[in-house]
Amino acid sequence: MKIYTISILLIFSFLLSFKAYSFQNSGEFFKIYPIGKVKKKGDSTCIKILDRYSNALKGMNEFSHVIVVYWFNKNDTPEKRSILQVHPRGNKENPMTGVFACRAPVRPNLIALTVCKIISVKRNIIYIDKIDAFDESTVIDLKPYIPRLDSARKDIRLPQWLDFPLING
Amino acid sequence: MKIYTISILLIFSFLLSFKAYSFQNSGEFFKIYPIGKVKKKGDSTCIKILDRYSNALKGMNEFSHVIVVYWFNKNDTPEKRSILQVHPRGNKENPMTGVFACRAPVRPNLIALTVCKIISVKRNIIYIDKIDAFDESTVIDLKPYIPRLDSARKDIRLPQWLDFPLING
Repeated sequence: MKIYTISILLIFSFLLSFKAYSFQNSGEFFKIYPIGKVKKKGDSTCIKILDRYSNALKGMNEFSHVIVVYWFNKNDTPEKRSILQVHPRGNKENPMTGVFACRAPVRPNLIALTVCKIISVKRNIIYIDKIDAFDESTVIDLKPYIPRLDSARKDIRLPQWLDFPLING
Repeated sequence: MKIYTISILLIFSFLLSFKAYSFQNSGEFFKIYPIGKVKKKGDSTCIKILDRYSNALKGMNEFSHVIVVYWFNKNDTPEKRSILQVHPRGNKENPMTGVFACRAPVRPNLIALTVCKIISVKRNIIYIDKIDAFDESTVIDLKPYIPRLDSARKDIRLPQWLDFPLING
């Protein structure tokens, strides 16, 4: 009798894992290649670009800020990629919110965005003042911060749960 | 006896599927799945999210702006993904610049970012005022625009070739 129960549980877990797997793998997808890593060591924070991409940094030193696009590596599981709503910042007092309407680190595509202040650029390394990312996070793109394109100032509206000051510094 | 064989086979196939899954997600590349499309029709511009992700929009209506993350579909070739420097905006008078230091639509990962003003949100559609993307571009993520996180105002520095006014509106 026991062995039947185990078998049924196994079949069930297999089907579940297969379903999660095939959901993620059905249809079209694009490939994202790592271009570098976040490195944190003591007071120093930097983005270290893979050697083969270092030429793509030419001119970065002329910008004050960079938009770092990275990957929430730790959450790259079919389960976490299928979460569609959360309480923002894990706070149950915040209303259930769609992952596209907050910055949750669980989402269908585990893309993270953050604007960082550049301290200096040396060969394949961009030293930045700080970043809200784990050490060794995989960086997937970098874009120069251009206020005309990347900032909005008129008619800003935010939900109540985001009761921050509007502008940082 | 039979039931043991079945159990062992099931455990084995479960482990195999797990291995296949973790292989896909470790090392070489990450998978990006389409979440919707840019739709332009006459004066109307919108982001149409796939039905299965519509719950992830809950709360988007409380924001004034959305960061649309999309894919430069047309340039998804190994050749275009290996270009590391360009003359920004195709203008030879602009100095050769690394693709990470400009917004060129050719880059190792064809990620595009743009901040859009939300007009309204209806079920799985976000109507926006405009977007600098082709009709039918594949959308891969959406993030609410939060000035505290997404804008910088102090000590902005830009290269000479970007002789735009600093702020749009």
